[in-house]
Amino acid sequence: MSHSISGSTQAYLIPGDPVRNVRLPRMFNATFERFGIDAVLLPMQVPVRDFAVFFKSAFLARNVRGMVIAPPHKPLVVDLLDGCGLFGRVAGSVNVVRRTEGDQLEGDLFDGEGLIGALDHCNIPFRGKRVLILGAGVSAAAIGVALAEGGTVNGAEYIAFHDSAAGKAAGVAAKLDAFFDATVVAVDSNAPEGYDLVINATPLGLVEGDALPLDVARMDSHAALFDILLRNQPTPLVRAAWARGLHAQAGFEMLIQQMPHYLRYFGHADAATALRADANFLREIVYPPAMHGEIAQPIRYHSANVA
Amino acid sequence: MSHSISGSTQAYLIPGDPVRNVRLPRMFNATFERFGIDAVLLPMQVPVRDFAVFFKSAFLARNVRGMVIAPPHKPLVVDLLDGCGLFGRVAGSVNVVRRTEGDQLEGDLFDGEGLIGALDHCNIPFRGKRVLILGAGVSAAAIGVALAEGGTVNGAEYIAFHDSAAGKAAGVAAKLDAFFDATVVAVDSNAPEGYDLVINATPLGLVEGDALPLDVARMDSHAALFDILLRNQPTPLVRAAWARGLHAQAGFEMLIQQMPHYLRYFGHADAATALRADANFLREIVYPPAMHGEIAQPIRYHSANVA
Repeated sequence: MSHSISGSTQAYLIPGDPVRNVRLPRMFNATFERFGIDAVLLPMQVPVRDFAVFFKSAFLARNVRGMVIAPPHKPLVVDLLDGCGLFGRVAGSVNVVRRTEGDQLEGDLFDGEGLIGALDHCNIPFRGKRVLILGAGVSAAAIGVALAEGGTVNGAEYIAFHDSAAGKAAGVAAKLDAFFDATVVAVDSNAPEGYDLVINATPLGLVEGDALPLDVARMDSHAALFDILLRNQPTPLVRAAWARGLHAQAGFEMLIQQMPHYLRYFGHADAATALRADANFLREIVYPPAMHGEIAQPIRYHSANVA
Repeated sequence: MSHSISGSTQAYLIPGDPVRNVRLPRMFNATFERFGIDAVLLPMQVPVRDFAVFFKSAFLARNVRGMVIAPPHKPLVVDLLDGCGLFGRVAGSVNVVRRTEGDQLEGDLFDGEGLIGALDHCNIPFRGKRVLILGAGVSAAAIGVALAEGGTVNGAEYIAFHDSAAGKAAGVAAKLDAFFDATVVAVDSNAPEGYDLVINATPLGLVEGDALPLDVARMDSHAALFDILLRNQPTPLVRAAWARGLHAQAGFEMLIQQMPHYLRYFGHADAATALRADANFLREIVYPPAMHGEIAQPIRYHSANVA
């Protein structure tokens, strides 16, 4: 209960703009409460022009233990840190920051880890597979890093980025290709033929009347679709894939699967372990009502998806 | 419940050093919860040298609506504001800050208002009376301002400050004497003869073995004692006064009585009104177990206190 917040409570902040619809505060605070951790995650509505000053100054409060970074601030954080994990450095953005015992600030990026967890939760194959990532922004880069990191055995073998903004995909692809064993390329077309997995990391689908980010009719019949969007699910894209009998998954499980990573990073290892064993109380918070049936019985990819 | 903290939750912060034992977070959050206000008060452990930067920067987050200021920061705030109420200006310190609709920061000081409310709650006479305030620090000044503000009819007629540090009381007394109708003086002695009310605003009594701040044996038999300390209550001073059959009161009710002022200042007028009608849920949080009997039946000053 919030009146259990006392003078000794530790603070985690989540700056964003807008931050109003961010789901992580409810998820974190339910987790802290469940596991008896005397801490809260509080949203902070911070405009981009004020972010750097706010970020540095907030840590002057010694009980501010860390931050989760919401859009649009993720790319701004890397330069403000004393240290940054590999994922954050390669992707050029950070979604989590902690204060070390030596009072330094270090950050990393767990969006992609969330995707990996979500794919495994749904049995969607990606190891050794060919993946098309639509979009080349912050989320797309985070996903690409996590897919590439495992090498061609534990990670994807071939990753293609497509972005409608000419040249945008090339920068991300070149950086990842240089860091990892996987072949990472930019492609000019959103044609999905020949890919085992297509991931929508564009905002297309957030607004009524958006064009579909690709033509699902051209996806291979065994291929799976993952749409990282949270609002308006199931999106027209997901519904189109379902109509074709393809496995298509909304983004909510990414949020769930990020949580153990955050908790471990913040030093709450026991809670992280417990959450890996049972995170259904979080799914009840973030899954939309129409998907609540998937909490007890996740829809899993299997070869019967082959049309 | 803290997992009801969402992306839309408004934030109030309470910076202090130390802030660990501050009671206001539990009181505020219980109040917000009870009256369905989507807001929290969060402690912020901020060292003095970092306070000014932290203070200004924290308000860069647009959902930070205000602060309550804990020691030792109260005197540092006045110079950081766009505007300051009379009590704050005269006392030279501020314990509450709000963001105005025009995005300015204004502050005021309600410690003394809390004392006035506590005196009235316990029927302790102070209007038109002679009051000795022991100590001349931030709390003493706040109390002096509130006692003097009502004029010699609705406020105290004569207020004397005593501080063991030579010269310290003179500055406070001169400032208040210039502002208000009451006679406000500094006195060299802590002799309580001739006063109707003695208020301990020194830290004496916080540590085992502290000398008593005055000799209660010399208090007039009708006089009342108010000890603003919260820890170690009943203090040796309060117990000595009780042993003499005097009315003596610990400081907890000051905290309770400040709450409606804070809430109204922060724009939560309905909650302030409701709290004036019934604040017993807050007394249950802050009164120590030994005083819980006073929640239903406050110990009130009456002439039978005359020995």
